[in-house]
Amino acid sequence: MKQGLPTVLYGGDYNPDQWPETDWDDDIKVFKQADINSATINVFSWALLEPREGEYDFKKLDHIVAKLSQADFKIVMATSTAAMPAWMFKKYPDVARVDYQGRRHVFGQRHNFCPSSINYRRLAGRLVDQLARRYAGNSHIVAWHVNNEYGGNCYCENCRRAFQEWLKQRYQTLDNLNRAWDNNVWSHTIYDWDEIQVPNELGDAWGAEGTHTIVAGLSVDYLRFQSDAMLSLYNLEKQTIEKYDKQTPILTNFHGTPNKWIDYHAWAKDQDIIAYDSYPAYDDPAYVAAFRYDLMRGLKHQPFMLMESTPSQVNWQPYSPLKRPNQMRATELQAVAHGADTVQYFQLKQAVGGSEKFHGAVISHSQRTDTRAFQEVARLGHDLKKVGADFKDAATPAKAAIVFDWSNFWAFEYVAGITQDLQYVPLIMDYYRQFYQHQIPVDVIGVDDDFSQYDLIVAPVLYMVKKGLGEKISTYVQNGGHLLTTYASGMVDESDNVYLGGYPGPLSKVLGIWVEETDATVPGQTVKVAFDQSAQRYEGRLLCDQIHLTGSKTRALAHYASEFYAGTPAVVENVFGKGLAWYVGTRLDDQGLGKVIEHVIDRTGLTGLTSQTTDLEITRRVKDGQELYFVLNLRNEPRLLPTDLQQAGFVDILTGAAPKAKLEPWDVEILKCGMDQ
Amino acid sequence: MKQGLPTVLYGGDYNPDQWPETDWDDDIKVFKQADINSATINVFSWALLEPREGEYDFKKLDHIVAKLSQADFKIVMATSTAAMPAWMFKKYPDVARVDYQGRRHVFGQRHNFCPSSINYRRLAGRLVDQLARRYAGNSHIVAWHVNNEYGGNCYCENCRRAFQEWLKQRYQTLDNLNRAWDNNVWSHTIYDWDEIQVPNELGDAWGAEGTHTIVAGLSVDYLRFQSDAMLSLYNLEKQTIEKYDKQTPILTNFHGTPNKWIDYHAWAKDQDIIAYDSYPAYDDPAYVAAFRYDLMRGLKHQPFMLMESTPSQVNWQPYSPLKRPNQMRATELQAVAHGADTVQYFQLKQAVGGSEKFHGAVISHSQRTDTRAFQEVARLGHDLKKVGADFKDAATPAKAAIVFDWSNFWAFEYVAGITQDLQYVPLIMDYYRQFYQHQIPVDVIGVDDDFSQYDLIVAPVLYMVKKGLGEKISTYVQNGGHLLTTYASGMVDESDNVYLGGYPGPLSKVLGIWVEETDATVPGQTVKVAFDQSAQRYEGRLLCDQIHLTGSKTRALAHYASEFYAGTPAVVENVFGKGLAWYVGTRLDDQGLGKVIEHVIDRTGLTGLTSQTTDLEITRRVKDGQELYFVLNLRNEPRLLPTDLQQAGFVDILTGAAPKAKLEPWDVEILKCGMDQ
Amino acid sequence: MKQGLPTVLYGGDYNPDQWPETDWDDDIKVFKQADINSATINVFSWALLEPREGEYDFKKLDHIVAKLSQADFKIVMATSTAAMPAWMFKKYPDVARVDYQGRRHVFGQRHNFCPSSINYRRLAGRLVDQLARRYAGNSHIVAWHVNNEYGGNCYCENCRRAFQEWLKQRYQTLDNLNRAWDNNVWSHTIYDWDEIQVPNELGDAWGAEGTHTIVAGLSVDYLRFQSDAMLSLYNLEKQTIEKYDKQTPILTNFHGTPNKWIDYHAWAKDQDIIAYDSYPAYDDPAYVAAFRYDLMRGLKHQPFMLMESTPSQVNWQPYSPLKRPNQMRATELQAVAHGADTVQYFQLKQAVGGSEKFHGAVISHSQRTDTRAFQEVARLGHDLKKVGADFKDAATPAKAAIVFDWSNFWAFEYVAGITQDLQYVPLIMDYYRQFYQHQIPVDVIGVDDDFSQYDLIVAPVLYMVKKGLGEKISTYVQNGGHLLTTYASGMVDESDNVYLGGYPGPLSKVLGIWVEETDATVPGQTVKVAFDQSAQRYEGRLLCDQIHLTGSKTRALAHYASEFYAGTPAVVENVFGKGLAWYVGTRLDDQGLGKVIEHVIDRTGLTGLTSQTTDLEITRRVKDGQELYFVLNLRNEPRLLPTDLQQAGFVDILTGAAPKAKLEPWDVEILKCGMDQ
Repeated sequence: MKQGLPTVLYGGDYNPDQWPETDWDDDIKVFKQADINSATINVFSWALLEPREGEYDFKKLDHIVAKLSQADFKIVMATSTAAMPAWMFKKYPDVARVDYQGRRHVFGQRHNFCPSSINYRRLAGRLVDQLARRYAGNSHIVAWHVNNEYGGNCYCENCRRAFQEWLKQRYQTLDNLNRAWDNNVWSHTIYDWDEIQVPNELGDAWGAEGTHTIVAGLSVDYLRFQSDAMLSLYNLEKQTIEKYDKQTPILTNFHGTPNKWIDYHAWAKDQDIIAYDSYPAYDDPAYVAAFRYDLMRGLKHQPFMLMESTPSQVNWQPYSPLKRPNQMRATELQAVAHGADTVQYFQLKQAVGGSEKFHGAVISHSQRTDTRAFQEVARLGHDLKKVGADFKDAATPAKAAIVFDWSNFWAFEYVAGITQDLQYVPLIMDYYRQFYQHQIPVDVIGVDDDFSQYDLIVAPVLYMVKKGLGEKISTYVQNGGHLLTTYASGMVDESDNVYLGGYPGPLSKVLGIWVEETDATVPGQTVKVAFDQSAQRYEGRLLCDQIHLTGSKTRALAHYASEFYAGTPAVVENVFGKGLAWYVGTRLDDQGLGKVIEHVIDRTGLTGLTSQTTDLEITRRVKDGQELYFVLNLRNEPRLLPTDLQQAGFVDILTGAAPKAKLEPWDVEILKCGMDQ
Repeated sequence: MKQGLPTVLYGGDYNPDQWPETDWDDDIKVFKQADINSATINVFSWALLEPREGEYDFKKLDHIVAKLSQADFKIVMATSTAAMPAWMFKKYPDVARVDYQGRRHVFGQRHNFCPSSINYRRLAGRLVDQLARRYAGNSHIVAWHVNNEYGGNCYCENCRRAFQEWLKQRYQTLDNLNRAWDNNVWSHTIYDWDEIQVPNELGDAWGAEGTHTIVAGLSVDYLRFQSDAMLSLYNLEKQTIEKYDKQTPILTNFHGTPNKWIDYHAWAKDQDIIAYDSYPAYDDPAYVAAFRYDLMRGLKHQPFMLMESTPSQVNWQPYSPLKRPNQMRATELQAVAHGADTVQYFQLKQAVGGSEKFHGAVISHSQRTDTRAFQEVARLGHDLKKVGADFKDAATPAKAAIVFDWSNFWAFEYVAGITQDLQYVPLIMDYYRQFYQHQIPVDVIGVDDDFSQYDLIVAPVLYMVKKGLGEKISTYVQNGGHLLTTYASGMVDESDNVYLGGYPGPLSKVLGIWVEETDATVPGQTVKVAFDQSAQRYEGRLLCDQIHLTGSKTRALAHYASEFYAGTPAVVENVFGKGLAWYVGTRLDDQGLGKVIEHVIDRTGLTGLTSQTTDLEITRRVKDGQELYFVLNLRNEPRLLPTDLQQAGFVDILTGAAPKAKLEPWDVEILKCGMDQ
Repeated sequence: MKQGLPTVLYGGDYNPDQWPETDWDDDIKVFKQADINSATINVFSWALLEPREGEYDFKKLDHIVAKLSQADFKIVMATSTAAMPAWMFKKYPDVARVDYQGRRHVFGQRHNFCPSSINYRRLAGRLVDQLARRYAGNSHIVAWHVNNEYGGNCYCENCRRAFQEWLKQRYQTLDNLNRAWDNNVWSHTIYDWDEIQVPNELGDAWGAEGTHTIVAGLSVDYLRFQSDAMLSLYNLEKQTIEKYDKQTPILTNFHGTPNKWIDYHAWAKDQDIIAYDSYPAYDDPAYVAAFRYDLMRGLKHQPFMLMESTPSQVNWQPYSPLKRPNQMRATELQAVAHGADTVQYFQLKQAVGGSEKFHGAVISHSQRTDTRAFQEVARLGHDLKKVGADFKDAATPAKAAIVFDWSNFWAFEYVAGITQDLQYVPLIMDYYRQFYQHQIPVDVIGVDDDFSQYDLIVAPVLYMVKKGLGEKISTYVQNGGHLLTTYASGMVDESDNVYLGGYPGPLSKVLGIWVEETDATVPGQTVKVAFDQSAQRYEGRLLCDQIHLTGSKTRALAHYASEFYAGTPAVVENVFGKGLAWYVGTRLDDQGLGKVIEHVIDRTGLTGLTSQTTDLEITRRVKDGQELYFVLNLRNEPRLLPTDLQQAGFVDILTGAAPKAKLEPWDVEILKCGMDQ
């Protein structure tokens, strides 16, 4: 059993090796002014640590570790394997990836190691062995940070061979493989494992990486393989560290929106703590970040680390306007509200060169502390010092869960279907946003999670239903659970082969429907949808299922109200066993979907954290029975606190006073029931 | 002399090898419910037929053929050479193409064989030999279907060598070649055939494949070469089959809009019947499909096969909305109206995997027949059974012809000219649409067709005028013919060298004009055009020729009415010998072009199939002197039948009754003069 | 000391080797009708001159030279090295470039030689040696034209080696190199020169060529290296010619808008005369061409040659509408107004084939002279014959200068910053346009030019401030100079490393400011800006600096008037020594920037060439104390001459009469003070 984090970490990536040692004391003094208590080091130092193969030089790192230890910093120690030294590319060209265009890369950039390179594995493993042996004893190290932001695929010959082996494990026989990929189509039958090619532009791919492919089964399997291959790299490092240190948590930092290349559900079990790098864009609505945090928290159903975030601007998004006064603090606390137990920045000190020299930092190029950005960093440091113990390790309970699944993500976006507008994440977000707006806590979970602990499972576009999942869902509802799903669900098995007998395949019975065919709306077109007898019309788009009710207790909640299928069901409710199941046959607009969700909430008995309508974000963390309400104004305008949170007994632990009735722009209150104070 | 088709075929692509044999009887039973009488088989079975080089396994195909024969199906037997087995790519990498980016491909996709690969030729030839020998005697085989949808170029070293040989045949000497490509420009002189490179991104190309190139003469010749090389593959298979079967028609299936890679005029003479795969997009106006059918019929001036079409949706267009009720039937009968003697679908049964698993089929994933789509398929089957004999082999007479020419298509789109907006097909379509709207039957023909059988030849953007074509056109008009042509005509010879002495080169005399220079309109700009003394103004765009009248009997029908050249001729009429020639100097808007066309119709004496204005589609097929009027409502709204088709004596052969005065959405009437009934 | 041009050249590129010799006499006769006195020959004749390696054939060129000499044409003799013969690619594949995608090219196109190919150097050098030896004595040759329009990069292995050598020269040690590129970031430390890779798609690049890169220092150095490598090719040819001819000017032709690949400041010192190819697009405002001419004139502070321009249309821009009547003459004379001492066309005779067959020419495909285009060419020829001696060698004095710097161009567009909209040229143009609109003559100069001769230095987005430049600027202002600069200035050193201590780094003191942070506007957003107490609001966008005033004599001229930083300085004035410095903290709209410029003009004492507001273009050339005012109406509408140019004493030397008060569309007057007449 690993130990947890000793305290709420406040800090982030620090690269003293980019600076003269004479700067370090000053840097630490500045950090302390902001109550920064932690530094992530050694993320990209391989070239310094191993200037020539097998020659290690830890002198500088020793100094850094000593300096930070003396200053009583909690150290997150990275392994430096995410960017390979130039000499390694030269000596072992196979360490570099071959891209989707079929080209072997050379030295440059980062995050570009081939997961099947034996040279990379050998050299990375040896470096990590040296590091772990040397620093395992340092009690200031509170976490090991393996590599960095894994992601991206390789399409080299070594990966091709490894993929063939992976497929042998999965399918055992070529007959199984040919059936799984339906290889009789287009004469794709494989007679020898060695005939299998990687799905890039030279082979079976069609369009840019990550879009439509010819044999989706092959492409989905390739993503699974690459995710697994990367995971084996991670575990190589993890197991090496554990030879020397069995207590300290080991992890890598997840990232992305969500990252399409890595199945984080598959990876989560090998993470001692989930760590996440969060970079919402200026035009991402607040619920987008909220969704990502809930996804991260759901990976292990535990608090996570906010491993990276910017104290001011990033430099690689199209536009990075200044964060408005207090905006940075509010958006960092949003992560905490959703389960983060750390606040860490990339980066603590701004480099003068390289790709990220205009990425924000605690110590900026001006090297001054009388700046707005630094003052906000310091204020947040003081806040966390004050209230960190209140929320650390607190849970974030939810009675509803939204299903997010990487195999579905991949398979759905590889569909060559009746519309080109199939994007997985926005469709999931349609549903997340509804619960967010109703202040109803949700978990974001995977298909292998335990459904029975939830009153409601929301599984939009559950296109791929792997073996057993249909039964699992049916049992859940049979036993009194509530299921909400949509168009494009229940269509294919785990190898992307369509279920025969009518859509939505294994979900047909629990939903009490058969979908005969599906209309695709064209640009500019929407289809009208009506609920009950109401004259109000809502709009459906993307896909419009033609639904037949087949269950004895199935009824339509809404009908189409235009096109030749006007009057046929658009939204359906089915009583199944002790539970209920709903099917939404088209991509409803927000108002229409709101109608569905209100009905579902009502039937399921879910309640929000406020009974009032508000566009404040309200979440809850619970620790030792004590509830904390995080109330965030994530807008540049003031907002009123709902009156049911203004009741006597609430105290804002940030101020120690009763909550203010009006939250200024980007203001935050963390409310605790006063009785425990 | 080959035999014709024994009956109107109704059926399409069927892949029983993707299904257990136990399904086959059920499938056939379902097909029979829809009066399906034919199946196209063996299109992509190479990997099953030849699991290892030289080892053939026809057992499954024997069963399929036997089963279909027992059921008295007409079999269209494909040769399976369009998708190569994985082992072939591995053993003979040269069978795969090198792309425009210069990259050799590997196993994957389909339609990707190099036309210059001796291994592909050898292996394809041997497979076809086996097939033809084995099945030549089967009387149920009504056609041999060679390969599938030829198209796409290869840029490999073998193609480079073969191209050099092809050029030697064409030009005999390097002097001729250098002159043809005007190689003194930019120091491109060739001193050895071996110096010649293929025009891809590594060499002379400029921009994406199919767009502008540096030496257009080279690029046009390369397309001619690739079309010829592909044709030689077709003929290799054809001649192999003819060793065993001299009676049954042999063909491949043409496709595209139109397909830019294959000169179908050059290919037509080697097709026993023209076969066409028709997939109009949801937003293609009805005249677009009509044009393509007329083009196909014109290739041999004979009825053609509608070889593929979807019974419901396709899965590879950006958007494939559901066909509205009865829409499928109407659009299939549109092909018949324009000369199709078959109605065939891709596909009869929907695969569970592969790239086209969401492409529509007669038997869909639900495997039910109580579906709207199946019922419409069955209704059309009953219709064809009833009236097929009436239209089979019927001609489609026309007194006007529109010229469509692949060399012009290629050369015109390769022009580096004064505007980037040069696209051949839309400009041809401007003119086709006019005649379509006037219900005037037209043939779409090539430059080598006999012009003398037509009252009017419409040759828009006849940019490339090969040797002899100018004289042929002049003689045609001299003898009383009527010519309508446009801007961008008569500019270059067959090697894309400009005719000196003034545009439109060899057409100058027959048109009585000299074009001094040409304005290019810029985005958002149009130029006003006025006819006679009328105050009405029309709009020209794209190109605006500055025209001088040089003939003694030349006159302007319209003038520009804006820009510095206001008052100069925009549309010209010339009396030449016994005929008339018209020149339209700019891309007129529909109304303006309508003015020109009405004048041309009037002077030429052409008449439409109705004297009334209607947006019903009306065409005519004639057999043994009996006229059939196909009246199609290709809109989702009702339309009135023109009163001149409501006269006594007409019978709708679909119903056996008098025509209805109002056609419901997507309704069809096939009218026959009652006297023959 | 080289001789100058003997007269104003009127002519251009002529390729008689594309035509039968029998045409030549007729061509020359036509040219003479237009007072054409010069021809540029032999630009792309390598394949004809050297049909096989080492075998030279000058017979045709001898004839051409003789024919033109007999006709007393001034010959611009090109060296033919810009397009390599096909045999050379075949024999020496290394002569061709490797592209940004990492692909070696083959024969095709032009301008595609690798600057590091020893084979190219050897063969080009030997050809030029032959040419120079043979024709050096011909007195009709008035200039040697080396190669053609240098530009474009190579990324081959030979270039990689040469780049490593170039870096050794520049940095001496790897420590210096690693520091210059800040290579500790992302583990990029180089331990062996041989580890250095070229920055293309396979290595460190990010995005398309010329956009953002990972290590900007590397990419900027690579552009410097390629520019230097190309320059060494130029000098190889130049020095070869000078072995035989030390008098005649030698040059190459510059081009582009501006050309991003070549540092023309670095190249200028080796040009005996600057020559420029000018092809403004139809939608380029007139000031764009004016800017480019001023840039060319500023390279040597001498008159330049207008080496190429079109007499009618070009064929490679998206849209090339006809030039309106008299437009061609006006736009050619615009070059003269800005310092051109020649007017030369591409091309004198239009080819029938190749890539530019639809590019305009003096003798067009019609080969007629009764055309509008030819008549305008002839009119201009007569004009130049009449007035050429008046302007030849005249200076173009200016008291203000705008700084344009290639290293800044490169570095600024490689920034990964807080907005993706960083484009160097448009931001420079903002400022040029202001002076243009005020009829204030400006020079466009480089950072190494002598600032002290100017009353005002305008240096917008001076992002990169190399060693010594900050001091040079400070001294200039200290001594009474005036400096105007902007946002995004003073940020990095010559290796793209940020200056620590606060932006704008070495310019902070002269400007009296510190920029704490910078807002990036997002699409659709602008920030309000107010001057003084005025209620008028202007708009800023792109970047909005948060400025602190630090000088004792610093004051704000304008403030932001929206966003949270409303009320803080947006435009600043600083008194520094005897001079003044202004800083504009955001991209102001034209009106707002106009306010700044008017203030600057007022404080600096600059005056325009007219005291009245006009959108005529007015420039001035001065020779022997005599002023010539070029007044150009570059619009398709009439304009009135400012009354202060209508005063007694002015004569239009084109007409010999007093100036007309109204200039018709595209009319031109060249006014000379009558007293000298």
